[in-house]
Amino acid sequence: MTAREDQTLSAVEDALSGGSLTDLRAVLGPLSPADVLSVLERLGRKDQAVLYRLLSKDVALQVFEGLDAPLQSDLLSGLRDDEVTSLFAGLDPDDRVSLLDELPAKVAGRLLRGLSAPERAKTAEVLGYPHGSIGRRMSPEHVAVRVETSVADALARVHAHLDDAETVYTLPVVDAGRRLVGVVSLRDLLRAGPHEAVGSVMTAAHWVEATTPAETAARECADRKLLALPVTDADRRLVGLLTVDDALAVLEAAESEDAARAGGTEPLRRPYLSTPAATIVRSRVVWLLALAVGASLTVQVLDAFETTLEQMVVLSLFVPLVIGTGGNTGNQAATTITRALALDDVRPRDVLRVLGREARVGLALGAMLGAVGLCVVALLYGTQVGLVIGLTLLIVCTLAASVGGVMPLVARSLRVDPAVFSNPFITTFVDATGLVVYFLVARAVLGL
Amino acid sequence: MTAREDQTLSAVEDALSGGSLTDLRAVLGPLSPADVLSVLERLGRKDQAVLYRLLSKDVALQVFEGLDAPLQSDLLSGLRDDEVTSLFAGLDPDDRVSLLDELPAKVAGRLLRGLSAPERAKTAEVLGYPHGSIGRRMSPEHVAVRVETSVADALARVHAHLDDAETVYTLPVVDAGRRLVGVVSLRDLLRAGPHEAVGSVMTAAHWVEATTPAETAARECADRKLLALPVTDADRRLVGLLTVDDALAVLEAAESEDAARAGGTEPLRRPYLSTPAATIVRSRVVWLLALAVGASLTVQVLDAFETTLEQMVVLSLFVPLVIGTGGNTGNQAATTITRALALDDVRPRDVLRVLGREARVGLALGAMLGAVGLCVVALLYGTQVGLVIGLTLLIVCTLAASVGGVMPLVARSLRVDPAVFSNPFITTFVDATGLVVYFLVARAVLGL
Repeated sequence: MTAREDQTLSAVEDALSGGSLTDLRAVLGPLSPADVLSVLERLGRKDQAVLYRLLSKDVALQVFEGLDAPLQSDLLSGLRDDEVTSLFAGLDPDDRVSLLDELPAKVAGRLLRGLSAPERAKTAEVLGYPHGSIGRRMSPEHVAVRVETSVADALARVHAHLDDAETVYTLPVVDAGRRLVGVVSLRDLLRAGPHEAVGSVMTAAHWVEATTPAETAARECADRKLLALPVTDADRRLVGLLTVDDALAVLEAAESEDAARAGGTEPLRRPYLSTPAATIVRSRVVWLLALAVGASLTVQVLDAFETTLEQMVVLSLFVPLVIGTGGNTGNQAATTITRALALDDVRPRDVLRVLGREARVGLALGAMLGAVGLCVVALLYGTQVGLVIGLTLLIVCTLAASVGGVMPLVARSLRVDPAVFSNPFITTFVDATGLVVYFLVARAVLGL
Repeated sequence: MTAREDQTLSAVEDALSGGSLTDLRAVLGPLSPADVLSVLERLGRKDQAVLYRLLSKDVALQVFEGLDAPLQSDLLSGLRDDEVTSLFAGLDPDDRVSLLDELPAKVAGRLLRGLSAPERAKTAEVLGYPHGSIGRRMSPEHVAVRVETSVADALARVHAHLDDAETVYTLPVVDAGRRLVGVVSLRDLLRAGPHEAVGSVMTAAHWVEATTPAETAARECADRKLLALPVTDADRRLVGLLTVDDALAVLEAAESEDAARAGGTEPLRRPYLSTPAATIVRSRVVWLLALAVGASLTVQVLDAFETTLEQMVVLSLFVPLVIGTGGNTGNQAATTITRALALDDVRPRDVLRVLGREARVGLALGAMLGAVGLCVVALLYGTQVGLVIGLTLLIVCTLAASVGGVMPLVARSLRVDPAVFSNPFITTFVDATGLVVYFLVARAVLGL
């Protein structure tokens, strides 16, 4: 299927560069909305607008729904006001809110005012929850059933909402006060006798509060293998439902963010090929400058030990090796713990267990690397230099693994993204301390 | 809910360290299978076995189904043969295959022989697909309907399979030759009249072949927001169904692997706290040694330029800064492209577009950093050294971004995990070439 998509893309690109709208229309004609989507996500902003306006009306709406909010926002800027208003009204309330977050406040306000009163009310409900909370990503359009209802009546409710509910496969069960008391799957309803009460066929519910961070809620939905996770207020009253496809979108964005931060950049939020180069530069330059400022620490450390360096220029040969190995060991530990945190395998209260394990692991790694370093360097540059390198690697690895393991937990406790605090900053910290260790060991062993 | 889980874990740990099985049983009694799971995933291997044997029989099976295959395998080694056989028979065919992949061949063979003939046949079917393909992860237990069937008959089939099918919400539609012709959702069936033909209410199917890499298929399922994705053979005959929860598990494992490789370790495959320290050491030591061997290149480069270093010891002060900045720039590019590859936003055939963008981005970043470096270093160490640093940063950033952006695409073309090839190896490569650039620039500018 990928080969077919590639052919389609080539045909679209040819038509675009040829400038013939007739050709372009002919290429687009037979494509499904999903095919159009995968083409759109690989074009620049101007080409996207040209292509989008050639789509038939129903395909256009489906394609628009499938785009991520930043791309939706890009596209809107190229359309007429009436087109924008009708596209916006066609979205689900949760998708509307994601888009509103991307738009300038003035445009957002105008769009909201253009909605019908009931649609505006539903949208405002979702808008009321804090940024980054699951309240913003849940769907208020679900089918809840009362616990005392009969299975037959519950199935009738399902039939009545086949067209408008986000899902009919998981139904939250509530009491007279709209408090969540359980969930029932459509499968269980179909299996039960029509006169049984919903309360007797439902199962215990997992749920999250609407103020829960979106990533935590989405991870809960995924870990429990649920098709939908009920969302409640602080009094356990039902306010919405998180469906598994929305949970997946939340997790994918969170993982892109983690990956980007671990690599020392900001996440792009748009597909790479449709992101302008200037945006890419902006996503990287602040990190790069911050890290360079951190790296200037190493210049100061080396400056402080300049006399030692002048006495033994051979020591400068191993500077990149020593700090590189320290950085690698620290990054390994940080990567493992950051991932374990994201998967909820480890929590900040485990800090001592993590420190204990990482110190032991670092010591073991340092012993192995140090032994190799000692032998090889002793052979090539003499026993004393070998001893310096071996001892330094032993200490630096132990230190780096401990710091690397603990840092993400500290970040989480401080409510900072653990990925921000981890790899690049650990490298900087370990670089500077590693050099101090190196020169202190060298002075002691060589008697300088 | 997390606070409650923490309390439960403390209670279990207290009971375990107290050695009182009665206490432990009392703590476990009221727990749901999901609660038990989250406790188990945070214990060491011995404690896991103790706790598991105290569970009631039905809770035990549910807990076992919820564990990842490596933990299942750990647990089996602590149980009696008859317990093992009955647990194994209770699993779904696809879960059985994941577990078999973890077990020694002898144990696996014995377990397979212990199955009933029809269960063994279903398992063998899944086992027949190549490692890492979606054929191994799909469920053969689905409900397919024939295209000419009436909606009423299709619903009757759903009712008949409520207990054994993996899902009844997405039904693949097939022709007389079992070739996939569409899918129909339970929602669509409920909405349609009973006498309509399934063929008139079904929609076009997305599907994948059973030999497709598991990650590609899972990404397809997630991107298209499908609850289930049909899996076919090369002739488009239906052989299974990938459900969204299994797709999620595949994606989570793939992302753990990417994160680990990008950080220079092997993925652990078990929750961090229940992984023995020796396993953690093993997951890191090979990478660390390989990277240290790579880093020995920097020793050789510095050795080659030792006379230059002796003439100008001040040059050695900036070695960590120069290689660090190059490494960071390269890692940023590699991280962005590796993620874009995972999300299918970029493909190997885009290599020239990526190279063009990254060269421009690297040049822009290098110009900014170089300008800052030039000014600061010129102020502190004189104009000539400042010029060396500024020029070096300009060249190194351009080079590093280009190499970092292209490397993951090359890796993908060579069918190597792009994450393996990327961050740590780029650092090593950029470190060595960066040093060569640095000393060549220094010699030219300083006339050494």
